[in-house]
Amino acid sequence: MAKSKFEYVRQFETDDTCLRNCYIVVRLDGRNFHKFSEKHSFAKPNDNRALGLMTRSAQSVMEELEDVVIAYGQSDEFSFVFKRTSTWFKRRASKLMTHVASQFSSSYVFYWKEYFAEQPLLYPPGFDGRVVLYPSNRNLRDYLSWRQADCHVNNLYNTAFWTLIQKGGLTTIQAEERLKGTLAADKNEILFSEFDINYNNEPLLLRKGTTLIWEKRDEAVIKRVKLPNEEEEKEVTVTRSRKRVCLHHCDIIGDQFWEEHPDILESDDC
Amino acid sequence: MAKSKFEYVRQFETDDTCLRNCYIVVRLDGRNFHKFSEKHSFAKPNDNRALGLMTRSAQSVMEELEDVVIAYGQSDEFSFVFKRTSTWFKRRASKLMTHVASQFSSSYVFYWKEYFAEQPLLYPPGFDGRVVLYPSNRNLRDYLSWRQADCHVNNLYNTAFWTLIQKGGLTTIQAEERLKGTLAADKNEILFSEFDINYNNEPLLLRKGTTLIWEKRDEAVIKRVKLPNEEEEKEVTVTRSRKRVCLHHCDIIGDQFWEEHPDILESDDC
Amino acid sequence: MAKSKFEYVRQFETDDTCLRNCYIVVRLDGRNFHKFSEKHSFAKPNDNRALGLMTRSAQSVMEELEDVVIAYGQSDEFSFVFKRTSTWFKRRASKLMTHVASQFSSSYVFYWKEYFAEQPLLYPPGFDGRVVLYPSNRNLRDYLSWRQADCHVNNLYNTAFWTLIQKGGLTTIQAEERLKGTLAADKNEILFSEFDINYNNEPLLLRKGTTLIWEKRDEAVIKRVKLPNEEEEKEVTVTRSRKRVCLHHCDIIGDQFWEEHPDILESDDC
Amino acid sequence: MAKSKFEYVRQFETDDTCLRNCYIVVRLDGRNFHKFSEKHSFAKPNDNRALGLMTRSAQSVMEELEDVVIAYGQSDEFSFVFKRTSTWFKRRASKLMTHVASQFSSSYVFYWKEYFAEQPLLYPPGFDGRVVLYPSNRNLRDYLSWRQADCHVNNLYNTAFWTLIQKGGLTTIQAEERLKGTLAADKNEILFSEFDINYNNEPLLLRKGTTLIWEKRDEAVIKRVKLPNEEEEKEVTVTRSRKRVCLHHCDIIGDQFWEEHPDILESDDC
Repeated sequence: MAKSKFEYVRQFETDDTCLRNCYIVVRLDGRNFHKFSEKHSFAKPNDNRALGLMTRSAQSVMEELEDVVIAYGQSDEFSFVFKRTSTWFKRRASKLMTHVASQFSSSYVFYWKEYFAEQPLLYPPGFDGRVVLYPSNRNLRDYLSWRQADCHVNNLYNTAFWTLIQKGGLTTIQAEERLKGTLAADKNEILFSEFDINYNNEPLLLRKGTTLIWEKRDEAVIKRVKLPNEEEEKEVTVTRSRKRVCLHHCDIIGDQFWEEHPDILESDDC
Repeated sequence: MAKSKFEYVRQFETDDTCLRNCYIVVRLDGRNFHKFSEKHSFAKPNDNRALGLMTRSAQSVMEELEDVVIAYGQSDEFSFVFKRTSTWFKRRASKLMTHVASQFSSSYVFYWKEYFAEQPLLYPPGFDGRVVLYPSNRNLRDYLSWRQADCHVNNLYNTAFWTLIQKGGLTTIQAEERLKGTLAADKNEILFSEFDINYNNEPLLLRKGTTLIWEKRDEAVIKRVKLPNEEEEKEVTVTRSRKRVCLHHCDIIGDQFWEEHPDILESDDC
Repeated sequence: MAKSKFEYVRQFETDDTCLRNCYIVVRLDGRNFHKFSEKHSFAKPNDNRALGLMTRSAQSVMEELEDVVIAYGQSDEFSFVFKRTSTWFKRRASKLMTHVASQFSSSYVFYWKEYFAEQPLLYPPGFDGRVVLYPSNRNLRDYLSWRQADCHVNNLYNTAFWTLIQKGGLTTIQAEERLKGTLAADKNEILFSEFDINYNNEPLLLRKGTTLIWEKRDEAVIKRVKLPNEEEEKEVTVTRSRKRVCLHHCDIIGDQFWEEHPDILESDDC
Repeated sequence: MAKSKFEYVRQFETDDTCLRNCYIVVRLDGRNFHKFSEKHSFAKPNDNRALGLMTRSAQSVMEELEDVVIAYGQSDEFSFVFKRTSTWFKRRASKLMTHVASQFSSSYVFYWKEYFAEQPLLYPPGFDGRVVLYPSNRNLRDYLSWRQADCHVNNLYNTAFWTLIQKGGLTTIQAEERLKGTLAADKNEILFSEFDINYNNEPLLLRKGTTLIWEKRDEAVIKRVKLPNEEEEKEVTVTRSRKRVCLHHCDIIGDQFWEEHPDILESDDC
């Protein structure tokens, strides 16, 4: 049973190293989450428990893979951006995306109870992923803008759609018919004039999605210290600066967010 | 907030379609499972609960991805083989491997309790994966043989190592020293002459790993039928042939297994 | 001017090794050969000088790259098949296809005079190429059949088209119109009933294209030998078996060609 | 002989589109040029005819592929840089590199006579190529600097080596021995103190290699014009600005060249 006789099969593995000096984006999407959300009675159009669980799982990924400099999520998708100089897994695409997909999925089940309490998880959910490379800061910001614009478009539609049903008494088919061909302004108008809803007052979480970044935060830590001249240890409160994953529900299309967090992106000059 | 302005970023996605008429193998490996097994007090050298949970998770993957014709696992790794004509996910490597990694990982947490009962899962585990293509039946069988030979080599070593410690009273360093440079025959001899253990009588699960395949099994199903001439429905027991995931702990290096299950592989002539 | 400071740029090179145990096909196509053939007054529908030069260039490629086991050409294209176990250029796709493209192109200009005599080459022609992998003998034979079927379809069309013009006095637009929607049988009928041409008697070179393979041929070689007991060298004729590139204009879709040349393909069982 | 039955083989072609917004570099290297240069009696250490022919062939490539914004060559290698926004061949790597290799090789043979006059070309030479992507202007400039630094290192060595042989009367082995372990300064010193050669006065062509770029040049063109009020056409000389391939033998590592030619690179901000 000589192992060596079969070892030649390793030569069939191919190298899938990501091009250097490019941002590596891993995006995950829920598989059959339409069915999953129905089976688990997600609130419509948005379920805060489900969104919270997505974010919690994404945080777990970032804490495990520190080279992720920013993550952005909305609905049942989440994107993770590795810094352009990352050498994690030697930049092997397959390792990066499977590890992200795996850590996210196990976390989703692990933290389910924290968000859904007594409501049981009926079956293990699945996510699929992909890797995309972006060579410049402009390209990366445009990618994130694309996802946030998508969040806006979908959420405005869904808000109008479910308001027409839940408050307007329309059937799903009638609501679909009503919104066919409408522009953003039309949907805003329907919400405002018919239901007294100012879309701009809807929660930022829903309109802007969730952005996770690393930030330095001061933390009070209690240390036991033995002072000179004294015989017993004493508890002392010390302030430490520590990098933590922090979340934002703000616009990331404009420049302000990036100016306030200049450390996320590395220069194009390198 | 025109979505279209940013949509160009989709063009950065690359095509990673797997070459046609090749077996697609996705192999998963536990991340930092040495630490994971210690934190969760896995029995040494093998923990049947952990092996059972791995197999349960693999079964969950196969039931979700029916084009997997055979899966093989040992220790903290599992390989999934998609049939060579599979068009699942249009054969896109990234989708295939992330979905497998995701489904396996969420299942691992989901089914934890069934195998570890009251012992809690302390944190969500991670797996990484890769895709390898094999053009011929010979290559694929040699791949599986390579993994099973690896199982044998590792299990014989671990059995000897932990027996020297647990029954022989050696430290880990002493056991390592003792086994340095020994061949398979030497380890068999140590086990037999010093501890009265015939390695060949060890459980097949440990020596051969776990093979999952689809098999047709007859099932008795109770149907409610309304017979002609009768007014009420009656319960009738019907026998149905149904494809199910079945597990084996046998040699898959020799020809016998493949002759007994001729449907797993497709012909090289196509 | 330290070289080492810049050497990091080598890390941007990516690995493009071809999957093992697959046939590697490099196909070249003439660039803008419509214009090229007009500028150089190629005979219509086929120019034997041009076809001869293509074949001569392909032979030059095979003699340079001995792992090419078969090459097939028609019109302004040529396909080169590397044996499945080839390790030429470590199976790097980019090296294989650029070397083939380069050798073919330099040979085309180098041997031009042998085929076009006094007619000058007006400018250096270009070819582009690609690499395709085929995992099984069936796939490879189907690839070659696809190219030969393409040769047949095009040549029948071109023969009918140019006969209608050259012998039938039609304009190109009229000939196009006449052939629109016709089947193979219709074109055969036009050629036979109107022009007394039996397409099946057209030269095999045109109907079947050109296939190049390595064959052992006996060669008479004159050697100078110094016999024992004699003082001077004598010329002796020796028969040697030598591998040479040989050409065929025959059907390669059916089994006969492959049965007669069993050494071209390697077994699928490996 | 239905073509369609075999057409499935096209599905085995894989997509090799180059990542957007990256410079695409195709580098060609002569195959066995050591032997080629000996067979054709190239002057040592540099043959101006051979260098001229390389440059002429590179110019032919640029005129055929206008998206090449800069090309750099030395010895028997030449690099071609496609602009980052190029969509030539839909950015398919295989097409780009084979077309470059093909056009270069056919040009090399085609223009041979212009550089080597009566000395015949003995056999068709071969080149191989590769594709490398560079995401930023810095990376691209570092790539070109790497090649130019390589030119300097090799040419200084070769100049010293052949001077020791041709003027110093050393054998090749003695010359090799003499230069072993020497630094640039040592070689400069040998040339200066022993042979009265100031390396810095050697031709720029040899020390810096050849850079080709597109430049606008005014050209006097003679046009035949029919003026109003006149009956016959008259020849008029008109000055036109036209893009042409121009060559430089200058430093491209420092900033000056790039400041003088700001149009070669596109901004990293896109």
